[in-house]
Amino acid sequence: MMSRFFSNKYKELKPYTPGEQPQDQKYVKLNTNESPFPPSPLAVEYAKREAEKLNLYSDPTCKPLCEELAKTYDLKPENVICTNGSDEVLDFVFKCYCDDDIPVAFPNISYGFYPVYAKANRVPFVEIPLKNDFTIDVNDYLGINKTIIIANPNAPTGIALELSDIENIVKSNPDNIIVIDEAYVAFGADSAVDLVKKYDNLIVIGTYSKAMSLAGARLGFAFADEKLISDLNTLRYSTNPYNVNRMTMFAGIGALQDAEYTKKNLETIIENREYTVNELEKLGFEILTSKANFIFAKSSKIDGKELYLELKKRGVLVRHFTKEQISNFVRITIGTKEQMDILLQKIKEVLS
Amino acid sequence: MMSRFFSNKYKELKPYTPGEQPQDQKYVKLNTNESPFPPSPLAVEYAKREAEKLNLYSDPTCKPLCEELAKTYDLKPENVICTNGSDEVLDFVFKCYCDDDIPVAFPNISYGFYPVYAKANRVPFVEIPLKNDFTIDVNDYLGINKTIIIANPNAPTGIALELSDIENIVKSNPDNIIVIDEAYVAFGADSAVDLVKKYDNLIVIGTYSKAMSLAGARLGFAFADEKLISDLNTLRYSTNPYNVNRMTMFAGIGALQDAEYTKKNLETIIENREYTVNELEKLGFEILTSKANFIFAKSSKIDGKELYLELKKRGVLVRHFTKEQISNFVRITIGTKEQMDILLQKIKEVLS
Repeated sequence: MMSRFFSNKYKELKPYTPGEQPQDQKYVKLNTNESPFPPSPLAVEYAKREAEKLNLYSDPTCKPLCEELAKTYDLKPENVICTNGSDEVLDFVFKCYCDDDIPVAFPNISYGFYPVYAKANRVPFVEIPLKNDFTIDVNDYLGINKTIIIANPNAPTGIALELSDIENIVKSNPDNIIVIDEAYVAFGADSAVDLVKKYDNLIVIGTYSKAMSLAGARLGFAFADEKLISDLNTLRYSTNPYNVNRMTMFAGIGALQDAEYTKKNLETIIENREYTVNELEKLGFEILTSKANFIFAKSSKIDGKELYLELKKRGVLVRHFTKEQISNFVRITIGTKEQMDILLQKIKEVLS
Repeated sequence: MMSRFFSNKYKELKPYTPGEQPQDQKYVKLNTNESPFPPSPLAVEYAKREAEKLNLYSDPTCKPLCEELAKTYDLKPENVICTNGSDEVLDFVFKCYCDDDIPVAFPNISYGFYPVYAKANRVPFVEIPLKNDFTIDVNDYLGINKTIIIANPNAPTGIALELSDIENIVKSNPDNIIVIDEAYVAFGADSAVDLVKKYDNLIVIGTYSKAMSLAGARLGFAFADEKLISDLNTLRYSTNPYNVNRMTMFAGIGALQDAEYTKKNLETIIENREYTVNELEKLGFEILTSKANFIFAKSSKIDGKELYLELKKRGVLVRHFTKEQISNFVRITIGTKEQMDILLQKIKEVLS
């Protein structure tokens, strides 16, 4: 449905479809890569404290949070921008560093939102095919004179690049912006954050949604050379200067200060991932090597869509993508051991 | 400061400058039209409850809040969109309903963000002069074949339009979108919300930041024909589907359910506004007729900028705008009686 007033430029726009978010909590929810663990008690405490002061605007400079992030990642506050989820800073990147003259390139199988951003911002884009084993061929990205966006680990495959490969891509495109989207990096891949000090064309994007159990708070960030951060802030101040609310800003500080809590949860997720991979392999599944809080799995015995539907019937939500090359896979978020055991049991039922 | 990578299209972009937000709380803060009253206890309670569940994404459809707003304003949920502050839905409006072929018009003295949105979205705009008495001449907006944005009451003047005037503007431009930005409507002006049922080209924008004491939560909304809401949602799902965080979503529900609390605060603000106007008039100030939670005041004895600076020295923050026609005014947010008495005392000191 669309009105007769809608600008022609958007008439073909097909929005991103987020994973199902049923609100009735009757599912074992393994479909949107949330953390199964509650947020850090310190994050909750700070958020609640700020709830009492909501009559006052949040700090549009986001200073205390930028400082805490800078301290944690050994950068300067000038190297940090905070946004309403990492989706917002991704949108800013497409605006600031892509236009008719600067196309953007990303893998043909990756975060499904990238092509939507390109279309919504009306910039030309190239989708570079993954290899047959679903890995990224680094050679495809060397010296290509385009803005490049790579999720590392990639989604929905979970496969990570080596840091040296990322550095080669950054080095070989000195006049273009390289964006590394590290939403899932904490679950076992190497972060490119230290390269920010060395290269003025690198933007590293992070989120609080996965490793830090704050998906519902909406908090993302990016690290980059201070001139790039200044560009991104120009867009931020031209669209939504108070983009991060008070409660979320301080929840973000609390989560960083509670690093032990996050570390313990990460270890548990990684342990549960290895357990689930093992068990599924015993059932004949093929699973890509994941460094994320999800796995991408297929069975020769059942089609991906059918498996998704059969599991949903049995109260377990996983994510299925209709794109042809990956339609025989399902993406499974790693939850608690108990959740994974329910999943495994239901899969056994489906296959039997 | 700007990087060598920044897209040419933004190189001239001058971002919006929000009012000062000193974080040290040493000022009587009457400069950004916040409520001096804490948020509703029910809003705080709901926000705190959701803080415990932040590991889960918020509902991207924002269904419970849209339903509560619809119920409160006698509309259908399909007539409602919720956003990360009203700034976000304003940005969507400039994207959806303005382009090279559809310029946008707004008063030359109004919310300073409108021209920034137009520039950031690269759409042609016309600033229509106010009359000498700072009122809007409705005739300037009849049948002009442009998208129109009017803040009612207007900012920073505080002057409101009659509802019949707004209806005439909407009726006389049946093939263009008319946006009424009602950020301050609760403080004494007439809302155009009921006209949404009658006209398919009207968008009424509201915010929780002022009357509902939730500036720091970031929550805005718009009411319109369901086809327009569908357009706006297309943009929302193409930029940031999880735009409203969990805590804010339920704080918004709490604030609506606590209507008595809001009503009492509104009455106090209106009372304090009339008191302040009276007292300032005794001191020789000229004050525009305000239906907002701020007043726009000038004194023949002191220039606006000087008054702003002298008050700041004395611990009271008001807002001054450098734009020539209004540079002799200051905008003063209406706070508690105690805050207004401090303001009045400091003004007496400055003038003596």
